[in-house]
Amino acid sequence: MKLSIGLGVLATVTSVSAVKVNPLPAPRNITWGTSGPIPVKQLQLQTESHNPHILNTAFERAWNSITKIQWVPQAIEAPILNYPPVPTGIPKAKRDVKAIQTVQLSVVDSGADLQHGVDESYDLRVNENGIQIHAQTVWGAMHAFTTLQQLVISDGQGGLIIEEPVIIHDAPLYPHRGIMIDSGRNFISVPKILEQIDGLALSKMNVLHWHMDDAQSWPIQIRAYPEMTKDAYSLREQYSESDLRHVIAYGRARGVRIIPEIDMPGHASSGWKQVDPDIIACANSWWVDTALEPNPGQLDIMNNKTYEVVKNVYSELSDIFTDNFFHVGGDELQTTCYNFSRPTMEWLAEGPHTYNDLVQYWVDHAFPIFRNTTSNRRIMMWEDTALGPMSAHHVPTDVVLQAWDNAEAVANLTTRGYDVVVSSSNFLYLDCGRGGDVTNDPDYDVQSNPGGVNFNYGGNGGSWCAPYKTWQRIYDFDFTDNLTEAQTKHVIGAEAPLWSETVDDATVSTLVWPRAAALAELVWSGNRSPDGQKRTTLMTQRILNFREYLLANGVMAAPLTPKYCLQHPHACDLYRNQSIIQ
Amino acid sequence: MKLSIGLGVLATVTSVSAVKVNPLPAPRNITWGTSGPIPVKQLQLQTESHNPHILNTAFERAWNSITKIQWVPQAIEAPILNYPPVPTGIPKAKRDVKAIQTVQLSVVDSGADLQHGVDESYDLRVNENGIQIHAQTVWGAMHAFTTLQQLVISDGQGGLIIEEPVIIHDAPLYPHRGIMIDSGRNFISVPKILEQIDGLALSKMNVLHWHMDDAQSWPIQIRAYPEMTKDAYSLREQYSESDLRHVIAYGRARGVRIIPEIDMPGHASSGWKQVDPDIIACANSWWVDTALEPNPGQLDIMNNKTYEVVKNVYSELSDIFTDNFFHVGGDELQTTCYNFSRPTMEWLAEGPHTYNDLVQYWVDHAFPIFRNTTSNRRIMMWEDTALGPMSAHHVPTDVVLQAWDNAEAVANLTTRGYDVVVSSSNFLYLDCGRGGDVTNDPDYDVQSNPGGVNFNYGGNGGSWCAPYKTWQRIYDFDFTDNLTEAQTKHVIGAEAPLWSETVDDATVSTLVWPRAAALAELVWSGNRSPDGQKRTTLMTQRILNFREYLLANGVMAAPLTPKYCLQHPHACDLYRNQSIIQ
Repeated sequence: MKLSIGLGVLATVTSVSAVKVNPLPAPRNITWGTSGPIPVKQLQLQTESHNPHILNTAFERAWNSITKIQWVPQAIEAPILNYPPVPTGIPKAKRDVKAIQTVQLSVVDSGADLQHGVDESYDLRVNENGIQIHAQTVWGAMHAFTTLQQLVISDGQGGLIIEEPVIIHDAPLYPHRGIMIDSGRNFISVPKILEQIDGLALSKMNVLHWHMDDAQSWPIQIRAYPEMTKDAYSLREQYSESDLRHVIAYGRARGVRIIPEIDMPGHASSGWKQVDPDIIACANSWWVDTALEPNPGQLDIMNNKTYEVVKNVYSELSDIFTDNFFHVGGDELQTTCYNFSRPTMEWLAEGPHTYNDLVQYWVDHAFPIFRNTTSNRRIMMWEDTALGPMSAHHVPTDVVLQAWDNAEAVANLTTRGYDVVVSSSNFLYLDCGRGGDVTNDPDYDVQSNPGGVNFNYGGNGGSWCAPYKTWQRIYDFDFTDNLTEAQTKHVIGAEAPLWSETVDDATVSTLVWPRAAALAELVWSGNRSPDGQKRTTLMTQRILNFREYLLANGVMAAPLTPKYCLQHPHACDLYRNQSIIQ
Repeated sequence: MKLSIGLGVLATVTSVSAVKVNPLPAPRNITWGTSGPIPVKQLQLQTESHNPHILNTAFERAWNSITKIQWVPQAIEAPILNYPPVPTGIPKAKRDVKAIQTVQLSVVDSGADLQHGVDESYDLRVNENGIQIHAQTVWGAMHAFTTLQQLVISDGQGGLIIEEPVIIHDAPLYPHRGIMIDSGRNFISVPKILEQIDGLALSKMNVLHWHMDDAQSWPIQIRAYPEMTKDAYSLREQYSESDLRHVIAYGRARGVRIIPEIDMPGHASSGWKQVDPDIIACANSWWVDTALEPNPGQLDIMNNKTYEVVKNVYSELSDIFTDNFFHVGGDELQTTCYNFSRPTMEWLAEGPHTYNDLVQYWVDHAFPIFRNTTSNRRIMMWEDTALGPMSAHHVPTDVVLQAWDNAEAVANLTTRGYDVVVSSSNFLYLDCGRGGDVTNDPDYDVQSNPGGVNFNYGGNGGSWCAPYKTWQRIYDFDFTDNLTEAQTKHVIGAEAPLWSETVDDATVSTLVWPRAAALAELVWSGNRSPDGQKRTTLMTQRILNFREYLLANGVMAAPLTPKYCLQHPHACDLYRNQSIIQ
């Protein structure tokens, strides 16, 4: 009965099922029965062994959501209308089925920690005798609860049902599945962060990558250096240690790892400069000369004090964040910034050394600090430290690199043996296409377009990574195309980043959701049917329904179509040919 | 002391004032004193004559907002940093100024109704003896309260001040200033509509154009035809008569006219078809053949029953909506839709008649219905009825036409003597650049861009009117450029529409605000300084502050930059040259 689940296995989901329920992400393998609805009542969790408290809480949460929401599927799949179909079959005789009340749970290894690569598979079986869940770990069992939560719906008369008996064998294609939020450009409040975690858990993603600070602000209270939050935007816009622990615990309770990022040595000014202005180069320069965006600042690589401060900040946060992964940034270093650092300019001249030597110096001196914590620490970085003009000569291959630039970066890095998280800006950047954020820019002042596409009128509207990434574009992203099998093995997953230059509490949820759910399915069970056909068309009603489900669960997701389209399957299709998307 | 205020007069605002307050829209004429802060306490409204209740309520609301918010300007203007400026002047001696407590108000004509063209001018004078407001009408006095509301700020110690004595003479450049919302594609709840009215009032706009229905849904309860709301999205997603009256009263209390739109004869299916399926052509056709977007449907122009139903619906709504303007749609008629109407096809063949004759038939038969209400009724329509392939031969010139397509439409229509509201999609459509809403579209499935710009990758991301309209693009829109004086006189104002294919309560406020505030200033006092220079650079801190002010007043406006930029004036400028935007 156990399905062999490997990276290459395609999902075997019925294309248009007889039931209304359409869980997202689509399970890898789901088989519906046909004997009719099974009433559900007062579900009790039964287990042979002692379960961790976290699992009982997770089940309670799922059951509370089921009973509070009494879900009525809001967008159901149906065959495209053409002519009235020929009536088939005979109506089912009314059956008197007893409501099921038990969930039998078995977890093989209830001690497995929530870390990269933990087994997240589960089997879920519903019949008239009850519900059985089998999972290797607590974290797989939680995904089973999430599926169950989506299976149990209102019977329209105040009761609850599961529409048909069902057997599900499920496991993710990739171990690393997440989004990135940025609380450095603008503050994101703790409640809004928790809302993102809710969305991640409901879509079976397991990583919240938290880009905590940036040059613009430092919102994290650090015991060693309380002065750093002088560069928080206000007294309110800060995270206390207890805030951090709360976010981590909230994520863990829902199977979501919190991976912190402290961006170094670039994108660094606020906070750091309060400890010692000398550890930041070019903080007070005109940003156009020294940075890719305002405001400028980079840790001075040739100042010994830099490593002392980095060590104290990193160690303190390492004690708080329980995940083995810690992201240390490493993106977009600019050479001219160091013109403002006398020690660095002298070192470059005296060697003579190159800028690549300089980045190597950073790697050689900072990595020992980063590794000197738990024995399982894995450093995560943006691709730039190993690629491009300001890269180091040698970056240890156990570093996880996050590829944000383009598909070539993924090929390059995986060939060199790095594990890679895909975040290609052309497909996965959630902030794109909504204008720029720099001020006093005359390029916006264009009233007509006489000579072709330009910056504004008919152009990208001021957004360097325009256009806006639609859910379809995200879902259709075949990010391992053109990779060899050996390269593909090094792709450990994907993250959709939401950079926050034009984002804060007001917009974070509607920009992440439901688009991140398209990525969630892509990395859980893929975007193709067993026949190799893209299943975007089938995904449509699933994601439209899921958007309403997110709203019902308190996650402020944005609408994708007129409600008419979700209430009328395929009425808004551009092509009647249902296999046109390949 | 009274300033002559005409359409051509440019604002005379100090470029970088000594005060922090920076009201939006910038007043036409504001002169700050230099004698120092004036404390404000328990402001009382004093008037010589009897004031309408509405004005006392408006003042109370302003005062409540002042005391509740205790505003601290969040983004202030300051000279661009270069070198430490040479210290000037001597510190002011500490003065003991008594708190002012009176607002002396005089309104010349307190009976003037809130209708198109009503005098909205006001004078506001603040000195150590108190506050004086002089206005021609109640509606001008309300704008004075709104300005006052923005002038009174926290003194940082629990008290309130106005920073300096000040004299303001103010009046709008254009009488018609607004936004359009669309509750037909997706429902917008009453509280969210009221939130838009709050934003309009705070930015001194005076029109909420409410596109109430569309082919997709009919949310309006009609006593004559209760069956129409069978095509509402749900029981919850409907407007009762009392909802409509509440929205109108709420708007009126804030000086905002509510102009309803029932879109006819195109964009019509839901609701109408419940009354009689025969009055809708092509409702059940494949939309790609008969409409510009799903779902299809147009009122059958050659069916007499159509006019009976139109008359009953229109009359009922005319009794509820108190504004003289009523928008009757008229956009985007499609010829092929009428292939589904036998009476229309016969009429076309028998004449023989053209499609222009058909639209003329609609004008000749529907206009008598539209005019048969109050004597002051002015019909408002989209430009299409007078322009383009599906236009009528003769449209009465007292119709107000809304130009959505491009600048040439404005020139064409004003030359022909029509009053025009500018809503050019290239500059004022707030929904653009965020993907499309049709489903099953293979154009999204593009992974690379070998041969230039295409639909998705590097293209417009599925949005026909991409790119996203930034606040700068809106503010910089010189919509009367290239018009003669005679043409310009027919431009009565502008509206920024937010079509709702991908909008509902979750996104409406962040898409309208603060971008609509850029239009608000454009149509109130323009986008240029007295020297003719674009004042976009000066507007920057004003709109960044105003965004925070909207949030403080409960209007969920989106952020435009990292908070760093609003806290550090000009630090995020692309050019140090402050006059680069011309």
